Amino acid sequence: MFKLSLNNMIKSAVFSIACLSHFSFADVLNETEVKHLTDLQKTSLNSDLSYQLIESLTTEVGHRLVGSEGDKKSITWAVDKMRSLGFDKVWTEKVTGTYWHRGDVEAKVLSPYPHKVVAIALGGSIGTGEDGLTANLAHFETLKDLEAAPDNSLNGKIVFISYRMERHIDGNGYDAAVGARVSGASIAAQKGASAIIIRSVGTDNNRLAHTGVMRYKDDVKKIPAATISNPDADMLVNQLKRSNSVEFYLKLTSHTDPKVSVKTANVIGEITGSEFPDEIVSIGAHLDSWDVGTGAVDDGIGVGMMMAAAHHISRLPERPKRTIRVILFAAEEVGLLGAKQYMEVHKDEMNKHIIGAEWDFGVGPIYEMRTGVGVKSLSALNEFAEYIKPMGVAVSKTNTAKAQSDMRLLSEAGMPSINFAPDGTLYFDYHHTENDTLDKVDAKALKHNTAIYTMFAYFAAQSGVDFRK
Amino acid sequence: MFKLSLNNMIKSAVFSIACLSHFSFADVLNETEVKHLTDLQKTSLNSDLSYQLIESLTTEVGHRLVGSEGDKKSITWAVDKMRSLGFDKVWTEKVTGTYWHRGDVEAKVLSPYPHKVVAIALGGSIGTGEDGLTANLAHFETLKDLEAAPDNSLNGKIVFISYRMERHIDGNGYDAAVGARVSGASIAAQKGASAIIIRSVGTDNNRLAHTGVMRYKDDVKKIPAATISNPDADMLVNQLKRSNSVEFYLKLTSHTDPKVSVKTANVIGEITGSEFPDEIVSIGAHLDSWDVGTGAVDDGIGVGMMMAAAHHISRLPERPKRTIRVILFAAEEVGLLGAKQYMEVHKDEMNKHIIGAEWDFGVGPIYEMRTGVGVKSLSALNEFAEYIKPMGVAVSKTNTAKAQSDMRLLSEAGMPSINFAPDGTLYFDYHHTENDTLDKVDAKALKHNTAIYTMFAYFAAQSGVDFRK
Repeated sequence: MFKLSLNNMIKSAVFSIACLSHFSFADVLNETEVKHLTDLQKTSLNSDLSYQLIESLTTEVGHRLVGSEGDKKSITWAVDKMRSLGFDKVWTEKVTGTYWHRGDVEAKVLSPYPHKVVAIALGGSIGTGEDGLTANLAHFETLKDLEAAPDNSLNGKIVFISYRMERHIDGNGYDAAVGARVSGASIAAQKGASAIIIRSVGTDNNRLAHTGVMRYKDDVKKIPAATISNPDADMLVNQLKRSNSVEFYLKLTSHTDPKVSVKTANVIGEITGSEFPDEIVSIGAHLDSWDVGTGAVDDGIGVGMMMAAAHHISRLPERPKRTIRVILFAAEEVGLLGAKQYMEVHKDEMNKHIIGAEWDFGVGPIYEMRTGVGVKSLSALNEFAEYIKPMGVAVSKTNTAKAQSDMRLLSEAGMPSINFAPDGTLYFDYHHTENDTLDKVDAKALKHNTAIYTMFAYFAAQSGVDFRK
Repeated sequence: MFKLSLNNMIKSAVFSIACLSHFSFADVLNETEVKHLTDLQKTSLNSDLSYQLIESLTTEVGHRLVGSEGDKKSITWAVDKMRSLGFDKVWTEKVTGTYWHRGDVEAKVLSPYPHKVVAIALGGSIGTGEDGLTANLAHFETLKDLEAAPDNSLNGKIVFISYRMERHIDGNGYDAAVGARVSGASIAAQKGASAIIIRSVGTDNNRLAHTGVMRYKDDVKKIPAATISNPDADMLVNQLKRSNSVEFYLKLTSHTDPKVSVKTANVIGEITGSEFPDEIVSIGAHLDSWDVGTGAVDDGIGVGMMMAAAHHISRLPERPKRTIRVILFAAEEVGLLGAKQYMEVHKDEMNKHIIGAEWDFGVGPIYEMRTGVGVKSLSALNEFAEYIKPMGVAVSKTNTAKAQSDMRLLSEAGMPSINFAPDGTLYFDYHHTENDTLDKVDAKALKHNTAIYTMFAYFAAQSGVDFRK
């Protein structure tokens, strides 16, 4: 009923919220608070602060691979920005990792039809040595096919997995594809292979390969692992249609130096709560990136959105009741090192993390709010849902959501969580490639999404709802 | 009138043509000939021969830079394919050129914010020497702005032109952008600059730079010339917003060896005319490509279409009256060397070139036939236009068209010409980049376009219309 009459009244999302405050359903926020929510929505929909932050980060810092100069600079950048944006507290928490060196890559088909191949080392891969290695390809369409190969059947071969990731709005093609990237090397090695190349885990047709983390099993020989671009994978498949014997050359000089310990840091900033300063509404993103592109999408967008959201709230006449904590995690890409460290440092105050949400996916607009909160607090969240419904955001029917990426660890430790699902149709065109640059940021969607996080953080911090119950 | 009743009758393009033969407007072709035209349309719309040829060329040969192994292989490839496809005569005509070596490229911003930059040498550029060169950027938004700079005002600077090409269906943004690529180096050198980088002449946002030919003025010092990718150009503009002093490093090891003469060849194949074998309907494309990508779009599509069109016609019960000559030009990319040589060899038989059309643009479907023929033959061409109108092809109102690329030289020497204009919206996303690969070929549009060239060649060869009058 209400929804129908509301829909009829909508002239704009902002107008709709203004109207909501005159209805009596608003049990959680009072009239002043609804006005603040409306103001925050207006402000963030009209502000390009999050875009400016992403531009600043990607122009002045660039990529932020753990242990790189950019990684170090980004910590200073984030601390300075948070201070200038009016955060009440800003600090860093040390995170330690290892520095993996990408080195150089060279890949080509030697026969039957010589071609250069666009390839990239997977994060964590060992190298081939300076001379590279030459071997015939053993082609598998899927990781499962590779798993089914007999032991020793691939001795001296380079495994090639040609599985192509599917494009979906929620990015769910990633799960079916990423196994080959993460686990393929050790499985291939168990069968005797000397290296592995896989079709990039990406939905684009660009001559750019997608990097990403891979893992070696402890008890299996390590072999070099790389991805190749989608057009190059097509070309290999076309060669394999013509010949059973495709000779391939791969050189990677990537390596990890076990003696070198890299220091990086989580950067944390707070808008301190006026009534319950020890109750934390956490919003997060990761500050590190791969060393290809400038990490504009992954996860510059998250960094810009979270900082802008907190800033907008800091400009209200008074601080919300609870503390809003922006956590910019270190070393997400190489294995959630910052998140693990955060859990270690803050394990005793997990019960003070009232609710949290991260941003580490998508370039398009948020279309669904997925909840993972105490059942009793769902009705209060439904009030919040009414505020963002006119912006085109639905609510999930299930209540099992975890926060994205780093904050999944906090969710798993019991933190009530929201996953704001954006249109991720294009995300895996750019993900972990040289194409992850500022121009891929959708400025309009960014405003929409920043508004939603701003409103969410304010609602959660001001309402006093206990999302744990 | 006719058009209205025809439109009502259309179920499919093929059906429409079948219908046409029952109308009496068909003054040029008789009933049997219209049936052959219909059959050719059906055959080519249902055949993937042109796609198979492009797959074969790009897989088995790869890129075809003048003087490269691929260039040599492509000549053998084309001769063999023409023979196996049933051409009556196949031969090559020698073309001589110089071999420009791309060498390596390295580009980066040194300060204020260090970044690597994706760059590519322009075809014909000299190198910087192995040590590269370091200089501050002098930024111009357009070539015109550079032209207005005072002499000696750019001493020791690297010129950066940031003009961005516009996207249009007919690719007309190219003309406004390409001047900086072709002429920018010598104009910059005249003002004292030590090198020039320009934003890629391309409509994409990929981290891939677009190469292409450039020219030095004879009396001006030669300086190195490169393009950078669109996202990198954006990044430079953002640095220049923050600082007047952007220090840039450029290394190119490209060079031309004036002592080495490269031999390549035009490849020519004919379906010999049954009545007027010395009257030539010429359809063409260029066989060479740049050394980035595999030249699938530029101009593998043209190669595949022309060879397939002639093959389809060769399968008719009898040869058309006139000869259909497929000309695969050499060395188009480096300055129409093959076309110039063709003009030299065939200058005395230009009046026997009854009509011609090339394909060297676009990946989308043909939407317009542009004529440049004798006025008296326009009515006959209008009959042909009725056959392709149901396929969505309009006719230009003007009669001043030249053939594309190489064949423009033949047009300028008096050959009646057709320019079939395709949807070129996406063409300059791929043009002269690593992204020019098989996956960019639109298989559906390719069938549509192959059908139109097949029908055109048959119509022109069989009708006996003198397009010169």
